[in-house]
Amino acid sequence: MKIIVQKFGGTSVADADRLRNVARKVIKAKDNGYAPVVVVSAQGDTTDMLLEKAAEITDRPNARELDMLLSTGEQISIALLAMTLHAMGYPAISLTGQQVGIMTDESHTKAKIEDIERNRILSELNKGNIVIVAGFQGINCHNDITTLGRGGSDTTAVALAAALGAESCEIYTDVDGVYSADPRVVKEAKKIDEVSYDEMLELASLGARVLHLRCVEIAKKFGTPLHVRSSFNDQPGTIVREGIEMEKGRVVTGIAHNTNVVKITIKGVPDQPGVASRLFGALADREVNVDMIIQSASRKGINDISFTVGKEDKTLAVEVAQDLAKAMGAEGVEHEENVAKVSIVGAGMISHPGVAARMFKTIADTGVNIQMISTSDISISCVIDAEHTDRVVKAIHSTFIN
Amino acid sequence: MKIIVQKFGGTSVADADRLRNVARKVIKAKDNGYAPVVVVSAQGDTTDMLLEKAAEITDRPNARELDMLLSTGEQISIALLAMTLHAMGYPAISLTGQQVGIMTDESHTKAKIEDIERNRILSELNKGNIVIVAGFQGINCHNDITTLGRGGSDTTAVALAAALGAESCEIYTDVDGVYSADPRVVKEAKKIDEVSYDEMLELASLGARVLHLRCVEIAKKFGTPLHVRSSFNDQPGTIVREGIEMEKGRVVTGIAHNTNVVKITIKGVPDQPGVASRLFGALADREVNVDMIIQSASRKGINDISFTVGKEDKTLAVEVAQDLAKAMGAEGVEHEENVAKVSIVGAGMISHPGVAARMFKTIADTGVNIQMISTSDISISCVIDAEHTDRVVKAIHSTFIN
Repeated sequence: MKIIVQKFGGTSVADADRLRNVARKVIKAKDNGYAPVVVVSAQGDTTDMLLEKAAEITDRPNARELDMLLSTGEQISIALLAMTLHAMGYPAISLTGQQVGIMTDESHTKAKIEDIERNRILSELNKGNIVIVAGFQGINCHNDITTLGRGGSDTTAVALAAALGAESCEIYTDVDGVYSADPRVVKEAKKIDEVSYDEMLELASLGARVLHLRCVEIAKKFGTPLHVRSSFNDQPGTIVREGIEMEKGRVVTGIAHNTNVVKITIKGVPDQPGVASRLFGALADREVNVDMIIQSASRKGINDISFTVGKEDKTLAVEVAQDLAKAMGAEGVEHEENVAKVSIVGAGMISHPGVAARMFKTIADTGVNIQMISTSDISISCVIDAEHTDRVVKAIHSTFIN
Repeated sequence: MKIIVQKFGGTSVADADRLRNVARKVIKAKDNGYAPVVVVSAQGDTTDMLLEKAAEITDRPNARELDMLLSTGEQISIALLAMTLHAMGYPAISLTGQQVGIMTDESHTKAKIEDIERNRILSELNKGNIVIVAGFQGINCHNDITTLGRGGSDTTAVALAAALGAESCEIYTDVDGVYSADPRVVKEAKKIDEVSYDEMLELASLGARVLHLRCVEIAKKFGTPLHVRSSFNDQPGTIVREGIEMEKGRVVTGIAHNTNVVKITIKGVPDQPGVASRLFGALADREVNVDMIIQSASRKGINDISFTVGKEDKTLAVEVAQDLAKAMGAEGVEHEENVAKVSIVGAGMISHPGVAARMFKTIADTGVNIQMISTSDISISCVIDAEHTDRVVKAIHSTFIN
C-alpha cells in the first residue's frame, strides 16, 4: 500500500465548492494508486467564530476547555469532506484525533505529539476507505482533547506521514510553493523547486510563512519528504527533503524577512562576569524567546547589551531588562519597535566565502544602516530600520538570485 | 454525594447571557450541597447551521458522518458552559459522550444508549468539579460517534441520572412544566404539579411536546424522578414519578392533541383472513409507525381498513397501501391529511366508568364528527377534522379539568 498524506488548510475547505476541489485532488491520488490519508484544518473563519464565543464569556478561557471548543472546527471539516467524497462516489471515513489515537503531552493549546496509533487508519485504508483526519488535535493520557497550537494541522500531517511511512506528504496551501523571497515584496521572486530540511528550517524560523518550523523539524527527523503546493492548480510546488542532490552552485536559496521584531538595549552595563547569563536566564524563566544578541563595549569597562524579541514579548522583556538594569546599576533600557530582520539562507554559502560581505555591501549601497548582524552555517541576518525592508529585500534578491 | 442531573436545551444556552443564567442555576444546586452533572444541547440554531452545511454538499449525507458533524454542536456548548462557570468562580469540566463513556448501539442518527461508564464522572465529581456532559451523543463499539435522535439530550440526562443513582433529574425548558392542555390553545390550562410515568408516557406519545417518550421510558424503568421546570424562573415545575400518591379523585390529568396525523383508508377489501397482517406487516417492514387502526364492514364480505400515520410517513404508507390494494383486488386507497387526534389522559379513569361517554358527548355537543376512536387503560383518543381541533380541546378541557 502506497500511502500519501495530503493536508489542506482552512481556506481550501472554506465552503462546499472548495471542498469539492479538495475532493478532486484526493480522488486523483486515489485513482493513481495511492491510499490517501487527508488532514484538514477548520473551515475559513470557524476558529475565529469559536474564539469570539469564548471571548464573550471570559478573556482568560481555561486552556482545556478552549481545546474542547476549538477542536470542533476540524471535526466539522472532516465530516463535510467525507460527505463530499461520498457524493462523488468514493468511500471515505472521517476520524478525530481521539479516534486515530494521536497521543500528545498534557499541555493544552500547544501540545506536542508523542505517539500515533496506526491500527484504526490502516484498517480503514485496508477496507478501501479514503481516511480523513482532523488536524491540529490529539488526546492526552487522560483522554482529554488537546490542540497543537500554530501550524498544528501541518504538524499532524507530517507526523502521520512519518508514523505511516507515507511515500510523501503534500501540504496544500494558497501559494504555489516556497519562493526565493516574499512575492508580495519582490515581483521577480521565483518558486524554489527543491530545498533541504535545514534551509527550510532557517527560512521558516527567519520569517517565511509557508511552512511552520515544527512540521519541518518532524519531517527532517523522520526523513519524510514534503511537497508544498497550491490548492488551486496542479503545478508541482516545492519539495523539501534531505539535501543530497541540491543544485550545484546555488549559494543563496531564499531571502526571508520579519518585521515582528523589537530591539531592546540595556545601556551602560558595568563589565562584570555573569551579566549576560543573568539577563538571558531571567528572560528564559519568563518564557521569552530571545532571537539575536549583541554585546558591545561602549566605553572602557562599560557595555551595551542589545537583543531582539518578537513583538508579543515586548512588555515582558522590557520589564525583565529594567529590573536587571536597576540591580546592576546600568544606565537604562531602550527599545526600538521600528526594526526588521532581513536574512539570506542557503546551504551553499558554507563553501562560498564572501557571501556575507556581498550582503553587507548590497545593503550599504541602498544607504541603509545595519544595526545588528547574526550568522549561522547556512544563513546571515541583519537588523535594519523597518521602513527600508522592502527596498533592502529587493536589492538582496537581485544580488543573489540570478 | 447527592448527585443531581440538570438538563438545559438549546434555547437555554443560546448565548453568553443565557449561559450565565444556566450557570446560576447550576451554582445554586452546588451551593445547596448537590454534586451537579449538567447536560446541555447545542446552542440555539447551531444544529440547523450544521445541517445547512451538509445540505450544500449532498441531500443524502452518510449517517455516520452526519453524527460526526452534528455532535460538534453539543461539544461547543459544554466548553462554553465550563468557561462560564470558571468565570463565575466554580470548578467545572466538560466531557463529550466519548469521554464519559456513553455506549450506544451501532445505529447512527438514532442510536440507543446501552451502557454508561461511571468512573470518569464520579472521579471528576470527587475532585469537586461540576461535570458538564454533551447531550445527544455517545459512541458505539467501534469508537465511532453516534447521536441519539430527537429528544436525545433529555435521554442523555435521564440515562445519566439512572446510571449515577441521582436524587433527581431536572429538565429545564422554555415552559413552566407540563400543562393540563397546550396553553397556546386553552388559556385556562393549569400546570400539573405531579404526574405518573404512565400518564406522562401517554401524554408524550399523544402529542404533548414537553418531554420525549424515550426519556420518560428510561425514567420509569429506573424509577428516576423527573422535574420539568422553566429555565427562566425559579418556580417548581412538574414532577414525574411513580404514581403512588397521586391526587385522589383526579380522573383526567391532561388533554393532548396532535395535528401531525394522516388517515389512510383502503376501501372495499375482500374479507379474507390475513389481510390486516399483510398490510401492517408490510408497513412495519418499511419502518412506518402506525398509530390507530379501524376495520369496518361496509358491505357483506367487504371491509374498509383505516389507519393513521405521522405526516412524515404519508408517501411511504400510501405506496404500501396501494400495492396491497392492487394485490388484494380492493377498490382503492384514500388519504386524508386534514385530521387531528384529541386525547384525554388520566390514571384515574380506570376506576371511573363513563369517562369515555362524557368525552364523546362533549365532542358531539360541539357539533364535530368523530372519525376514529382508540382507547387504552389510561387514555381515550378521537380523530376529528383538523379545523375543529382548538374548539374541541377547549370544550374537553372545560368538561374534565375543574
